[in-house]
Amino acid sequence: MAKIIDPWGSELVEDYEKIVKDFGLETFGAKTFPKPNKIMRRGVVFSGRDLEPISKAIKNKKRFYVLSGIMPSGEKIHLGNKMVVENIRYFQERGGDAFILIADLESACTRGVTLEEAQRRALNFHIPAYIALGLDPKKTTFYFQSENKDVIHLAYEFARKITLNEFKAVYGSADPSRIMAAMTQVGDILYPQMEERMPGIIPVGVDQDPHIRLTRDVARRTKEKYKFFLPSGLYHKYTPSLDGGLKMSKSKPESCIELPEPIEKVKKKIKRAKTGGRDTVDEQKEKGGRPEECMNFELQKQHLVEEDKELQEIYENCKAGKLLCGECKNISCKKMDDFMKNFNDGVEKAKKHITKLNFVKFQ
Amino acid sequence: MAKIIDPWGSELVEDYEKIVKDFGLETFGAKTFPKPNKIMRRGVVFSGRDLEPISKAIKNKKRFYVLSGIMPSGEKIHLGNKMVVENIRYFQERGGDAFILIADLESACTRGVTLEEAQRRALNFHIPAYIALGLDPKKTTFYFQSENKDVIHLAYEFARKITLNEFKAVYGSADPSRIMAAMTQVGDILYPQMEERMPGIIPVGVDQDPHIRLTRDVARRTKEKYKFFLPSGLYHKYTPSLDGGLKMSKSKPESCIELPEPIEKVKKKIKRAKTGGRDTVDEQKEKGGRPEECMNFELQKQHLVEEDKELQEIYENCKAGKLLCGECKNISCKKMDDFMKNFNDGVEKAKKHITKLNFVKFQ
Repeated sequence: MAKIIDPWGSELVEDYEKIVKDFGLETFGAKTFPKPNKIMRRGVVFSGRDLEPISKAIKNKKRFYVLSGIMPSGEKIHLGNKMVVENIRYFQERGGDAFILIADLESACTRGVTLEEAQRRALNFHIPAYIALGLDPKKTTFYFQSENKDVIHLAYEFARKITLNEFKAVYGSADPSRIMAAMTQVGDILYPQMEERMPGIIPVGVDQDPHIRLTRDVARRTKEKYKFFLPSGLYHKYTPSLDGGLKMSKSKPESCIELPEPIEKVKKKIKRAKTGGRDTVDEQKEKGGRPEECMNFELQKQHLVEEDKELQEIYENCKAGKLLCGECKNISCKKMDDFMKNFNDGVEKAKKHITKLNFVKFQ
Repeated sequence: MAKIIDPWGSELVEDYEKIVKDFGLETFGAKTFPKPNKIMRRGVVFSGRDLEPISKAIKNKKRFYVLSGIMPSGEKIHLGNKMVVENIRYFQERGGDAFILIADLESACTRGVTLEEAQRRALNFHIPAYIALGLDPKKTTFYFQSENKDVIHLAYEFARKITLNEFKAVYGSADPSRIMAAMTQVGDILYPQMEERMPGIIPVGVDQDPHIRLTRDVARRTKEKYKFFLPSGLYHKYTPSLDGGLKMSKSKPESCIELPEPIEKVKKKIKRAKTGGRDTVDEQKEKGGRPEECMNFELQKQHLVEEDKELQEIYENCKAGKLLCGECKNISCKKMDDFMKNFNDGVEKAKKHITKLNFVKFQ
């Protein structure tokens, strides 16, 4: 299984190793948490910050929380959100209290989306989409930042704990709107501890680590008053762009899959994805394919193939020259078809139950 | 009356003239508003920004508002607050809707005062003190920033309308806490227009003009969406330090009168105040005193003597050498005694009615 755990091309592996080293992260291993989910087992979840309090809480059945935010600035989500939900689900199933915040204040101040529009989008799509992706709504507390007085009050209180220069060092830039958004995120991340102090984990793409560090600094600096646990971070790799780039991005729509997206369009994109195939069929049959360089295989590994055994077979058959790229892409297309149908059905179903969710509302 | 209208020493006059010129303010004249109050008549209110909409609203009996904030970071207020209340009262009597905000978020983020502590101080002292100084509580809407969802939402929305460099240009520094406080003030100043668009006036010390300018910039930049009237500013001079400095300040307690303060301490300070008296009694009787350089006269003009006629007599008797400094200070002490008693009684009386005030509370 060793090769399946990290089948990235060496260049990309180096990138992630560099991140771990530069930012002082912990390497995430298959044994860090019990019964890891597929992205944890496969090295897609590759690092973290201060994971021990969470391992211990799971092991000793102590209270802890998992938190993530939804940015309701667009009308779609992406495969990165899917991985976040997979991790939230993992911690929910191991006893964690889940919190999902709608970052409406953040999208108002950084993107100019009105609160009304953000609320409409979140209720009509983003929250149902998270539920469709596997979030357990019965075990989740939802809130809008704009309605969460505690979060806002923490943001204001904590603002004096960070200087402008520290802020610039963490984020690079420091526009007023970025500062207000970041302080509010700090409030979000610590808010679940207002009722009871407990460890918490924030599963995010590794580019979000600055928020975790900033929050940990604030928690340290307000230790005397609040005694907050420093939050832990759990980081997954990006889903690569279908043309082989580091990160799928809307700026390259032909190499990016959004949720939802018409299945025929998605299939076309998969068919055009960069693979590790050889120049000719004969050569591939002889030498075998290179799944380590294949974006189709990456898609299967990160998202489409649930069973390790099936993924292992695909990998071995590819390496052996028995599974050619066209056929392998058909497997992906079929699975993507099922996934997108389930996703769309799940969104519609969840929309009907949206009023029954556990929303924080301040009086 | 000309000399009474501006009896400052030339150096200080120059300072205020420079401010008017440098910041592009309007000079405030005795005819700017109808039936001016004593600090308007006497040149203590010396300038403003965009005063015409307010003159017109008063003249045409159109709706307008007057707004001021209370910073509940200390346990006392000062004579500058007294002038602000005098101006609020003036506009209340001319039909303006009055708003008093408690800047509890601001004092949390810039001074580290907890919201609970700020609330306690405001209810037990600051609000009753403003009422004791003449605010008409029946015609006033009060709110705590931390409870005013609209203000907070405006602050977040407007943050993206100001760049960090603009912020630095206006305020000099740009710490995260200052930025959040300033954006919240912008929200405060425009909040009364959420229900209905109308002109508004903010009476403040001239050092607060940057907030007015920032708010006017934001109102211009969000014109298409909100169509807010640009707020007007009304500026009073500082009460000078009793030793002759530009501004009374707690950092020089011997030259500063706080509200409340034990009357015997205040009398001692007045007795030591810098005057425009001559070196000897004989010289003063012969040449007369110099009220333009006298801090005791300034105190009488700004705060202690209600009737212009009485102030004029004091001025003329001083100039004529008939009223000597000791006697003149006794007049001030007597009036200060009455004022402080009335103030303390007024605070106690207002505290009993605090629950009946019109507070904005968000659901």
